[in-house]
Amino acid sequence: MSKFLEKMVTDTNSTQGKIFDLVIQALIFFSLLMFCLETVPELRKYKHAFFVLDVVVVIIFTLEYLLRFLFAPKKKEFVFSWQSFIDLLAILPFYLSFATTDLRFVRIFRLLRILRIFKFSRYSQALSRFVRIFKEIKEDLVVFSVITMFILFLASAGIYFFEHDKQPDKFRSIFDAMWWAAATLTTVGYGDIYPITLGGRIFTFVILMVGLGTVAIPSGLIAAELSKKENAKLDPPASSPTNPTPPPKE
Amino acid sequence: MSKFLEKMVTDTNSTQGKIFDLVIQALIFFSLLMFCLETVPELRKYKHAFFVLDVVVVIIFTLEYLLRFLFAPKKKEFVFSWQSFIDLLAILPFYLSFATTDLRFVRIFRLLRILRIFKFSRYSQALSRFVRIFKEIKEDLVVFSVITMFILFLASAGIYFFEHDKQPDKFRSIFDAMWWAAATLTTVGYGDIYPITLGGRIFTFVILMVGLGTVAIPSGLIAAELSKKENAKLDPPASSPTNPTPPPKE
Amino acid sequence: MSKFLEKMVTDTNSTQGKIFDLVIQALIFFSLLMFCLETVPELRKYKHAFFVLDVVVVIIFTLEYLLRFLFAPKKKEFVFSWQSFIDLLAILPFYLSFATTDLRFVRIFRLLRILRIFKFSRYSQALSRFVRIFKEIKEDLVVFSVITMFILFLASAGIYFFEHDKQPDKFRSIFDAMWWAAATLTTVGYGDIYPITLGGRIFTFVILMVGLGTVAIPSGLIAAELSKKENAKLDPPASSPTNPTPPPKE
Amino acid sequence: MSKFLEKMVTDTNSTQGKIFDLVIQALIFFSLLMFCLETVPELRKYKHAFFVLDVVVVIIFTLEYLLRFLFAPKKKEFVFSWQSFIDLLAILPFYLSFATTDLRFVRIFRLLRILRIFKFSRYSQALSRFVRIFKEIKEDLVVFSVITMFILFLASAGIYFFEHDKQPDKFRSIFDAMWWAAATLTTVGYGDIYPITLGGRIFTFVILMVGLGTVAIPSGLIAAELSKKENAKLDPPASSPTNPTPPPKE
Repeated sequence: MSKFLEKMVTDTNSTQGKIFDLVIQALIFFSLLMFCLETVPELRKYKHAFFVLDVVVVIIFTLEYLLRFLFAPKKKEFVFSWQSFIDLLAILPFYLSFATTDLRFVRIFRLLRILRIFKFSRYSQALSRFVRIFKEIKEDLVVFSVITMFILFLASAGIYFFEHDKQPDKFRSIFDAMWWAAATLTTVGYGDIYPITLGGRIFTFVILMVGLGTVAIPSGLIAAELSKKENAKLDPPASSPTNPTPPPKE
Repeated sequence: MSKFLEKMVTDTNSTQGKIFDLVIQALIFFSLLMFCLETVPELRKYKHAFFVLDVVVVIIFTLEYLLRFLFAPKKKEFVFSWQSFIDLLAILPFYLSFATTDLRFVRIFRLLRILRIFKFSRYSQALSRFVRIFKEIKEDLVVFSVITMFILFLASAGIYFFEHDKQPDKFRSIFDAMWWAAATLTTVGYGDIYPITLGGRIFTFVILMVGLGTVAIPSGLIAAELSKKENAKLDPPASSPTNPTPPPKE
Repeated sequence: MSKFLEKMVTDTNSTQGKIFDLVIQALIFFSLLMFCLETVPELRKYKHAFFVLDVVVVIIFTLEYLLRFLFAPKKKEFVFSWQSFIDLLAILPFYLSFATTDLRFVRIFRLLRILRIFKFSRYSQALSRFVRIFKEIKEDLVVFSVITMFILFLASAGIYFFEHDKQPDKFRSIFDAMWWAAATLTTVGYGDIYPITLGGRIFTFVILMVGLGTVAIPSGLIAAELSKKENAKLDPPASSPTNPTPPPKE
Repeated sequence: MSKFLEKMVTDTNSTQGKIFDLVIQALIFFSLLMFCLETVPELRKYKHAFFVLDVVVVIIFTLEYLLRFLFAPKKKEFVFSWQSFIDLLAILPFYLSFATTDLRFVRIFRLLRILRIFKFSRYSQALSRFVRIFKEIKEDLVVFSVITMFILFLASAGIYFFEHDKQPDKFRSIFDAMWWAAATLTTVGYGDIYPITLGGRIFTFVILMVGLGTVAIPSGLIAAELSKKENAKLDPPASSPTNPTPPPKE
């Protein structure tokens, strides 16, 4: 029995291991779904049913955590591994929630469990590739963040001085202007706040022409890096053409 | 006569083959246009005319299918090829529609016929290149979909707790919040629902800064891969610089 | 005198040639500005002044055209070169406009003159690079256009069946749905028309996830190709690493 | 004492140098924050407190500038270096503001100080890399700007003739149409102004299909170039595969 359980929680390639993982994954999505359904006004009346289901889910997750702890070769390592830490974060809030009042808020942590999909090796590989890339282009990203912040601030200050007098209720302060700048430079453009003066509109256009590129670059940067890594992974010669040429035989 | 028909449906390079293909293509677009025109309220009164035209189109498509079947060297292969399957999907609904009530709905399948443009070899080549690329970056796309879903969920849960109390009618449940998150992270920003609290706006800005890149990456990834393939296709050396060096003559 | 004029219109490097080009460029922008100012309701009363200025500009452009024609080494070549054709398009409408009623409409052609900036060799180089790239990725662009059209049609048909019953005034026909699809898949999202049903919103989200990438790819494709060409232009080895290796000395 | 101060302002690696820089950075952000808070209507009553804080900040910045000047090896170079020029721009407005009336406007210059983050060598490296790239693709960017302007003008003129008669209040002149074009081609789409006629909508769709790519290309261009530089920086062979092949031994 113990052997069976050990195989189940440790060996993800065994039959019971696969099933166990699937069940846990299903439970995670199930608990996330509940998390959303609870907020639907029409379903408020079933809150007791939700609570019961919640208890069941948490108990299962707790048992799983204990099992993993039990069969972990190195207890210390297990406790301080980020994966088990996420699992703990996902169940702890429930027990804490008896102290605090806002049950729902603390339950947000549960959705951290979704991260566990990266346990599957080939995904964690892709993920680690991203992490590497982020490290490589960290400086560029920092520089771009600074430039973005600078443009955002410039846009906010500028539009405030253009629009404040005409729309004192919409552009009340530079903070409202910042909200406009954020919604505009990301091209979301809700339309809740926009310039109406000629100066403000010309300013907006200039800022967009300058700022748009800057805001859009990071993702392009990551994509380009990724495809390079991809390529390097697929056909090594492409990225490192230093392979020796066959020495001519005498 | 039979020879003529066979040439027409099988040999796309022959004169009659070319004409036949053009006629079929034209009919496809014509039927799609009808499909749209039928929904225009002002044209409801011509619904009988539409029906007649529809019958004509379907009969022609049926005849075409039968001809292709007749002259197919391997009947079995033909029936189970994706192209003829699409053709079947495009005509079958009509005959089924006598059973069901909603004629229009089943006719959606007809628009699948548009896919037949990929019969032209050079387009199907490009298409197959895309398929290959999608296969290559499948893992990245999966990882990004998961991350996107995660960010989307985080954004929905977060904005709900920020805005629900202030706008209980707009952010009724996390599902409404999800609609907001989808419209925001894709930068569509309809403006039907947006945060008004300071906390919600700051949260939106942070989520946008983090999420925008993530959502935008896949397309950039595909584009970068494509241009690489492109380039590989055009000047092979560029992507595989392992060309043998001229052996030194003794 | 004739020599001076010839130098002016033919030799763009001579002093008078430079000045002449600048004057023409200035006139182009001046006439475009007038073109816009004329539409301002407040300035309608000055329409006579606008007309006079317009006549002056056209006369100058006509003289320029005649001068270029006069000093062109090969008259035939000149007349049928795309540059002089644009120049002709820019002045002809004025003379034709005495026949037609809508003076403004025909004057749109004048803005074609802006294209003449590409006369400056280094810009025309960059432009020709783009043309080459467009040729290279033409098939991909065609395939993507087809796919985009397909997704657009699918989105329109789908949203129509989801939203028509709930919003018969907004989603009147599939053509209105197409307007929605165009505004949504390009992420413009005016907010004049959007889904309100649960089904419609989920459908929108799915379509966005699928369609966004597709719509965004072409520009990414061009950018990637461009940077490759750029790079090839800058350090030849990078894109063509087939440089001969130094033959070993005996 | 003098030695201590000198080390503080010149040697950024010394303990006091690090602390000094941090303090200045903190003051910069603090003054930017004040700059925003002053515009909040609720805080207008504290304007005297803001003024006092402002005076303090400016005095500190002035002292810093004088210190840097004092310990600069080459006074002339220091005064005309862009960094000290920015610092001067950041304090000068305050003293000038006693003459002018609009204190806030001149204080915008203060936010230029944010640029000083690029003093940190590794960021300035990244920045200089961008500058180099911008130089390399300058011509492409110019060409694209011209094309963008051309498309923008075409879109404005076109939509004006389509929508003016139907919405004379929204599309009053081509300048209003330009505002629409800017908001549309950048996909911001505030929704304050959009076409309603069939012709206008079809025109919008066509313009979007053509213009979207064009507008989106520059940022993609920069990103692709950046990742190339990145890559060149990381593994030299990748970008210059001209490494000599081992000469065959006799």
